[in-house]
Amino acid sequence: MHKFRNDYSEIAHEEVLKALIKYQDEQNVGYGLDPHTKRAEELVKKIFDAPTADVHFLMGGTQTNMTFISYVLKDYEAVVCASSGHINVHEAGSIEATGHKILYTKAINGKIDLEELEKIIIKHQDEHMVKPRLVYISNSTETGTIYQRSELEKISKICKDHNLLLFIDGARLACALVSSANDVKASDIAKYADAFYLGGTKNGLLFGEALVIVNKDLQNDFRRQIKNKGGLLAKGFISGIQFETILEDDLYLNMAANANNCAKALYDKLVKLGFNPDPVYTNQVFLEVDSTLANKIIESFGCEEWDVKDKTTVVRFVTSFKTKLEDVDEVYNYLLNNK
Amino acid sequence: MHKFRNDYSEIAHEEVLKALIKYQDEQNVGYGLDPHTKRAEELVKKIFDAPTADVHFLMGGTQTNMTFISYVLKDYEAVVCASSGHINVHEAGSIEATGHKILYTKAINGKIDLEELEKIIIKHQDEHMVKPRLVYISNSTETGTIYQRSELEKISKICKDHNLLLFIDGARLACALVSSANDVKASDIAKYADAFYLGGTKNGLLFGEALVIVNKDLQNDFRRQIKNKGGLLAKGFISGIQFETILEDDLYLNMAANANNCAKALYDKLVKLGFNPDPVYTNQVFLEVDSTLANKIIESFGCEEWDVKDKTTVVRFVTSFKTKLEDVDEVYNYLLNNK
Amino acid sequence: MHKFRNDYSEIAHEEVLKALIKYQDEQNVGYGLDPHTKRAEELVKKIFDAPTADVHFLMGGTQTNMTFISYVLKDYEAVVCASSGHINVHEAGSIEATGHKILYTKAINGKIDLEELEKIIIKHQDEHMVKPRLVYISNSTETGTIYQRSELEKISKICKDHNLLLFIDGARLACALVSSANDVKASDIAKYADAFYLGGTKNGLLFGEALVIVNKDLQNDFRRQIKNKGGLLAKGFISGIQFETILEDDLYLNMAANANNCAKALYDKLVKLGFNPDPVYTNQVFLEVDSTLANKIIESFGCEEWDVKDKTTVVRFVTSFKTKLEDVDEVYNYLLNNK
Amino acid sequence: MHKFRNDYSEIAHEEVLKALIKYQDEQNVGYGLDPHTKRAEELVKKIFDAPTADVHFLMGGTQTNMTFISYVLKDYEAVVCASSGHINVHEAGSIEATGHKILYTKAINGKIDLEELEKIIIKHQDEHMVKPRLVYISNSTETGTIYQRSELEKISKICKDHNLLLFIDGARLACALVSSANDVKASDIAKYADAFYLGGTKNGLLFGEALVIVNKDLQNDFRRQIKNKGGLLAKGFISGIQFETILEDDLYLNMAANANNCAKALYDKLVKLGFNPDPVYTNQVFLEVDSTLANKIIESFGCEEWDVKDKTTVVRFVTSFKTKLEDVDEVYNYLLNNK
Repeated sequence: MHKFRNDYSEIAHEEVLKALIKYQDEQNVGYGLDPHTKRAEELVKKIFDAPTADVHFLMGGTQTNMTFISYVLKDYEAVVCASSGHINVHEAGSIEATGHKILYTKAINGKIDLEELEKIIIKHQDEHMVKPRLVYISNSTETGTIYQRSELEKISKICKDHNLLLFIDGARLACALVSSANDVKASDIAKYADAFYLGGTKNGLLFGEALVIVNKDLQNDFRRQIKNKGGLLAKGFISGIQFETILEDDLYLNMAANANNCAKALYDKLVKLGFNPDPVYTNQVFLEVDSTLANKIIESFGCEEWDVKDKTTVVRFVTSFKTKLEDVDEVYNYLLNNK
Repeated sequence: MHKFRNDYSEIAHEEVLKALIKYQDEQNVGYGLDPHTKRAEELVKKIFDAPTADVHFLMGGTQTNMTFISYVLKDYEAVVCASSGHINVHEAGSIEATGHKILYTKAINGKIDLEELEKIIIKHQDEHMVKPRLVYISNSTETGTIYQRSELEKISKICKDHNLLLFIDGARLACALVSSANDVKASDIAKYADAFYLGGTKNGLLFGEALVIVNKDLQNDFRRQIKNKGGLLAKGFISGIQFETILEDDLYLNMAANANNCAKALYDKLVKLGFNPDPVYTNQVFLEVDSTLANKIIESFGCEEWDVKDKTTVVRFVTSFKTKLEDVDEVYNYLLNNK
Repeated sequence: MHKFRNDYSEIAHEEVLKALIKYQDEQNVGYGLDPHTKRAEELVKKIFDAPTADVHFLMGGTQTNMTFISYVLKDYEAVVCASSGHINVHEAGSIEATGHKILYTKAINGKIDLEELEKIIIKHQDEHMVKPRLVYISNSTETGTIYQRSELEKISKICKDHNLLLFIDGARLACALVSSANDVKASDIAKYADAFYLGGTKNGLLFGEALVIVNKDLQNDFRRQIKNKGGLLAKGFISGIQFETILEDDLYLNMAANANNCAKALYDKLVKLGFNPDPVYTNQVFLEVDSTLANKIIESFGCEEWDVKDKTTVVRFVTSFKTKLEDVDEVYNYLLNNK
Repeated sequence: MHKFRNDYSEIAHEEVLKALIKYQDEQNVGYGLDPHTKRAEELVKKIFDAPTADVHFLMGGTQTNMTFISYVLKDYEAVVCASSGHINVHEAGSIEATGHKILYTKAINGKIDLEELEKIIIKHQDEHMVKPRLVYISNSTETGTIYQRSELEKISKICKDHNLLLFIDGARLACALVSSANDVKASDIAKYADAFYLGGTKNGLLFGEALVIVNKDLQNDFRRQIKNKGGLLAKGFISGIQFETILEDDLYLNMAANANNCAKALYDKLVKLGFNPDPVYTNQVFLEVDSTLANKIIESFGCEEWDVKDKTTVVRFVTSFKTKLEDVDEVYNYLLNNK
């Protein structure tokens, strides 16, 4: 049975693999200075309408986060995020390992709390405390919700008012952009954020995130920073070829749309079955059921056990470029017989 | 014309790409906990006769070096290497960025100087200085030379006598092991080193290095260390599949042997042409010629300009799993007409 | 008028200054290897009944915290404290600057919440998260409360059960030990903590904290760690002379008792005046009054503005070795005329 | 007998101690925001003719070096010094612990080699290497030599030409300024350096270094950096009072002159005795004698064993504010009877 464990359970989209086969006899210069990477950079800049941005391809989300955030911050400066922010919870202290504190607000549906954000900024004017300098948000968030344009506008305003920068973790940015609930354009991302990345690992690539540095003050020597953090891939052209492949003909959007559609279909089926899943915006479905059933679901569909309560458990289904509607039907049929 | 720029100019060996195609519809758990990775780990342990070692797959050499070295050292401890050591010169300060000083001896044919090593260790007993705790060597070295068994034995003895650990950077370890001048067995590597890695990036993989931690005192929680340094690949099974592929049927040795053979053939041709290249042990050939000719060679064959002297220039040819003897002939013919 | 801003507003106790005058023509070896420091170390070990402990004298609290905590933790390990912990709030990110995450529980009267502590430890068994390895508490706490023996016992048990270490920030440890509410003996501190420090800066010294490392596994090469963090004082004998002075004849306890007595007297006077200050355990008095009066108090007595609410403000009075009961009377008389 | 071990063997100059006694009943705000510190800052700025500089008082040389250097450098940037530079040898890796590589030239009489400096800068344009950003020199140097005005000019020019900054470690700056061989004015120091410090620890204070940041681009939030590195002294006014005391009436120069004069007298006596000490510029005298005699000298006068050769040993005499000419006579008489 198809597993809904996460969106990085398969090697890569077949078009990506075909491109690797196609170029296997080519020789390219290393470290991302090749024509494929150059072309992929141009495609990224075009999509986000950011002609003066710098684009860098890194290998994973944690690496991208720590490489960029440590570049921006001075020793006594901090990044602020929601308590559920990936950097705060699931990166094994990688930001702190580069020397910087993470401050956090409570998370409201996975999003940063703006009121608390402003309070934190104001409170930290005391010189015995760290100085907030960067706001980190994820879009879509760690729980699949998305930021509205008006929210980005407000966050951006708070940042500008207090001389902070804004960084968007876009490990699942494509899913956010093609969400039916989304009103944010790709160009809005580049307009509001000083930097962001477009994730590939969770959207059909072998690996790879495209970091876009819009703010020109943050572009200087960034390749040395990547090297310093162990992220400068020798065969950088493999990143270039992969992004070239998915950015042409909107494959990156189509893959994300497939994931979102399957999640929506799963949500509908669950409702039809009488369950009460959380509202679905992108490719994650959270369902709270009694723990006995939850354990069966986890066993059958590889779902992550998201939260364990007294008698119930929240399970997470994640869909991907590879999920098919038949896979969703399989869940439906299973639950029909087992609920 | 075939370029001799380096050994990471092509995507990967066709068998590696075929394996990716073969498994593209498979779903695997992430982060290297999948059966492919498990099997690759077992193959590594068998090859090096290190049944109790821990094996981890990382994405590149700099990442592997900084992740392991920062794991071993306390704040005031240092790693010692040859001045030409990759960590000392070409990793943009990544070791220091994790908080540790690199001490170095002069390099003798790319190798650490044992006499100076002992002096450094003794001199640094002063508590106002860093404390040497780890010796780092590369095999083959950054200039293609290799360590003899007796040399490893001596280094290991110095380490043990002074309570230091030994780490071998094996980005090109396969080339060292199949060198005609080599007397070191795979099992010797695991016997003398507390940890080492077997490189894949420079030997036919898309990316990937297999870190082998032999010393049981250094195995605890190492996966958290990898995550902390941004190196825990989401789709870890891609590393597993790649190493599985090249470790079965000795493909990793055959690829290295091809590279070495082409380098030896190139050396022979250069001698035949009346040139005086440095002795060749593995897959790198260094040739000092007058700078005008050097520039032509660089332009035609993508060689790296290794050193520029008064009127002459040292160029470096690197061969790989992909180099063919005909490519070497092409160099011969070119030089016959242009020298 | 006497200011109640903090307990480090005056240079030092006169006995400390007299000792400096007395020894001014002496020559001593540097870096704390002199006989004064040796004797101070012995006095510390005797007071805390910790004959096998190592004692080191550092210059301030932040320095002591960051030097010790970074020594204990590996890259991916974290320290856990109360949200109000000094390291978490008022040290400008110094712990994170050495590479480590701080996790925190809510603070209950300035103390760590044991239930939440256990939850944090259990939750962080996930290898994608930091690994809790050290618990940090302050005694007396940042708000002047103190830990009871039974509380230390419980914390110690949680630590031992989960293989964590316990570190006590004793910047105001003397005030805790002489508190009328205290049931913890000096030897209990050394029994429950793996390491702790006895503060001098806030108890009559020019500067200086005596770090006591009880756990023998944490003693190795610690002087290099101090040097590495910039804390090895050239004229270490000045620390030695100071601690020697206050540890003989219980001057350190007498100074703390004076501070506590003045705080208690102030509390009583405030109650007599009809105010409702927080319960007082050591040398800090927190008083919530309407903001107009608060501002007058701050102006007259240099109190810190601790918290600003809607119409009221919390002000903090701190007493010290130098405060006199007449100074307290002055506050009483002032408030009598101004409330 | 007077020891010539170093220039930090006594507590402090009597005027410094008198000032502490004088102000012992004063209450001051903490962390260097008091009037004494303010006044000391103004005196420093006046002496170095640097009205727009920022002055900060730190506790020791290693702390000052690591706090400033880590403030200036980005992760991939390096500091360049002479091989004998204090930061490179005797600070237990404190610079690397903040994340930065130290590059070094050979030392010529304790000074940085300008030719090699330029080569290092040019060689490190490669983006796989660290980027030199700061030059560190000590004046007087670790071996007591001093930089001439023309040398500072050349170093400054190299820095400006390549966009590097210049930092002068002035742990013994006063001795350099009053050297009979010196042609550098105090104002020259502030003219050529982006930042420097005037040492107090080795010139009559209990502790303390006055860091002067001349370059306005490096002044922002520096107090948070100090706090972040554990160097913001709670009783900052003690630093202020000390510097206030020695900077008025040129006491700091007089103390340094006394040290230099005693060193010169010792040099003359040694020559008179037929020895061949190194040329003396400031307060350090290096003497190579046969090892038997060296050991007697070390035992009698506490000299440091600087270098041990085959049959001879180099011993170091250091003079200070406290050394008297009679102490020098004592050495003379001793050697007369023992050579």
